[in-house]
Amino acid sequence: MDHSGRRRRLQATLGEHELDGLLVTHLPNIRYLCGFTGSAGALLVDSRGATFFADGRYRTQARDEVATARIIIARKAPVLAAAEFLAASRSKTIARLGLEAQSVTVAQREQLADVLKRKWKLVSAPPLVERARMVKDKEEIRRIRAAIDLGASLFHIARRKIRPGVPEVEVAAAMEYEARRSGAEGMSFSTIIAAGKRSAVVHGRASAARIPRRGFVVCDFGVILAGYCSDRTRTVHVGSPSRQAKQMYAAVLEAQQAAIAQVRPGVSAAKVDAAARNVLRKRNLARYFTHSTGHGLGLEIHEAPRLAVGQTQALEPGMVITIEPGAYIPGKQGVRIEDVVVVTSTGCEVLTPTDRELIVV
Amino acid sequence: MDHSGRRRRLQATLGEHELDGLLVTHLPNIRYLCGFTGSAGALLVDSRGATFFADGRYRTQARDEVATARIIIARKAPVLAAAEFLAASRSKTIARLGLEAQSVTVAQREQLADVLKRKWKLVSAPPLVERARMVKDKEEIRRIRAAIDLGASLFHIARRKIRPGVPEVEVAAAMEYEARRSGAEGMSFSTIIAAGKRSAVVHGRASAARIPRRGFVVCDFGVILAGYCSDRTRTVHVGSPSRQAKQMYAAVLEAQQAAIAQVRPGVSAAKVDAAARNVLRKRNLARYFTHSTGHGLGLEIHEAPRLAVGQTQALEPGMVITIEPGAYIPGKQGVRIEDVVVVTSTGCEVLTPTDRELIVV
Repeated sequence: MDHSGRRRRLQATLGEHELDGLLVTHLPNIRYLCGFTGSAGALLVDSRGATFFADGRYRTQARDEVATARIIIARKAPVLAAAEFLAASRSKTIARLGLEAQSVTVAQREQLADVLKRKWKLVSAPPLVERARMVKDKEEIRRIRAAIDLGASLFHIARRKIRPGVPEVEVAAAMEYEARRSGAEGMSFSTIIAAGKRSAVVHGRASAARIPRRGFVVCDFGVILAGYCSDRTRTVHVGSPSRQAKQMYAAVLEAQQAAIAQVRPGVSAAKVDAAARNVLRKRNLARYFTHSTGHGLGLEIHEAPRLAVGQTQALEPGMVITIEPGAYIPGKQGVRIEDVVVVTSTGCEVLTPTDRELIVV
Repeated sequence: MDHSGRRRRLQATLGEHELDGLLVTHLPNIRYLCGFTGSAGALLVDSRGATFFADGRYRTQARDEVATARIIIARKAPVLAAAEFLAASRSKTIARLGLEAQSVTVAQREQLADVLKRKWKLVSAPPLVERARMVKDKEEIRRIRAAIDLGASLFHIARRKIRPGVPEVEVAAAMEYEARRSGAEGMSFSTIIAAGKRSAVVHGRASAARIPRRGFVVCDFGVILAGYCSDRTRTVHVGSPSRQAKQMYAAVLEAQQAAIAQVRPGVSAAKVDAAARNVLRKRNLARYFTHSTGHGLGLEIHEAPRLAVGQTQALEPGMVITIEPGAYIPGKQGVRIEDVVVVTSTGCEVLTPTDRELIVV
């Protein structure tokens, strides 16, 4: 990964926002900018370069992973270490330090202000690193594709495991075992296997409940491979689907196809969302579509952009987003169909396309 | 779980801190106070009662889980929904709203201030819920014990799997599969299997590296069962251990025993940490003990209190803490031994004690 290049591009934007430095504290942003994968650290980026702060637990790991930034190992919280480093710097003028307002806590800000009050003005910076991360480079797309390929292979296991009487968690366990054995660092979120009435629970994490004789099973799952997330949902039906179930599935699939058809550079995130929502409105299912149509993914399972009402962000080549409309009738049944697409110069490519027709087991 | 009782005790402390209400945004705190297990929500607690805010995705789940608080499902972020609810309330006087400074982000605070500026003064509240959560009730201790029992059974799998040539991740995968099949909601953190030289990496998450013919293997793992975490570390040795390896293991074990012997009500967290550190100092290993001696655990894998230098918090009956000294010689080898204890009225009980002697495989 080109950590130095990413930092150079970030440094080039600091001036536009009247920032003399940015204190990067959101861990995925730190990983993006310097390669550190641990669970505590802070990265200070200013016009002169970058300094990474970690505590003693990460001495070895920081040396192994952070090749292109100065490393300081301190006996205190990394954010505090960064603040004291800044406070001790020679500059006499008051400078503006950007904070990542979406991840810095109020307590951290107070701590920083205590140490830096004389020399630095703390400023809530816009999500500069998140914006840069929206557009993936070739290596990132390669990794996401690899993660999605692995995810696709897990669905075959789900298909084999899903039978009436099997606990949902048994299906998830088999998928997760295979993911780990195949090199995944973990799952990108708690695997959702939601069967029967539970298919109407949007985030129905696999439970001890047994799969009923008849009904939908929503399978929503992803892996983390070499740092990058996959995300896919397939909804299968156990036993013979009712006419209503078939219609509902067809409507959600039509909504997904309509949204995918909208994806190309220049189109707003809201317009993609609207395409899915309009199809479901025509089928009288709009009120059961209770979430957004999709989200970016990469180092995090949920990243910018968000495909939802009011989101004006225009799509750009290299953005990687999920398209995942659904419909959920509380207490009855639910359907979601999700794929990941990468925006290309003329439209989009569905990563690892697989059959989306209703599978009956 | 006695959610109403917990909220009553919290309400009783608001006055002491001159708060008219507390906006609870840290998800484990929300779960502790009202039972909601989803990944987005906000709970407003004031003298009159409690109101829980979630978005449409959680309509069904909130109804199922939150039995004792008013529920508001809004078409916006829960924190914003809570702010607008407060802004619309009839009170004319300016009131003080406590925020959880350790989890509210600067961006959220700015958003709240925008909506509430006329009627509410935003105050960084002390970690009131975290403090209450330090002392576990009987049901919580029962759940933690169950999680630890499950964790103990996973170590047997690790022992069978650990052999020269086996990838670390293969060991982790087998443990995680068994955890899921046994009802765990997931692992409480990314399983650490760190073999050979990697045993010196404190947070050596299981990698594709193969277990060498000779050396330590640090196994640090935990499950989440019914919401509560377990945490345990055992270090085994593959092949015949050198004299130095044996001495290092014996020193860490002695340090752990010395720390456990200190645990009783009234003793400070720092004193328990010092007991472990003193033993390692005598063995010339203190500089290789680069983390704290332990931490509370419960709904989160890392909770208060922290057993570290300078921590004045006195132990109380019902606190559940890990005791986990270690020593890590960079590039060579590392050892950590960890158990969970509950503070009793006279000392402590090790939960699910198992053999701690050096296991050679």
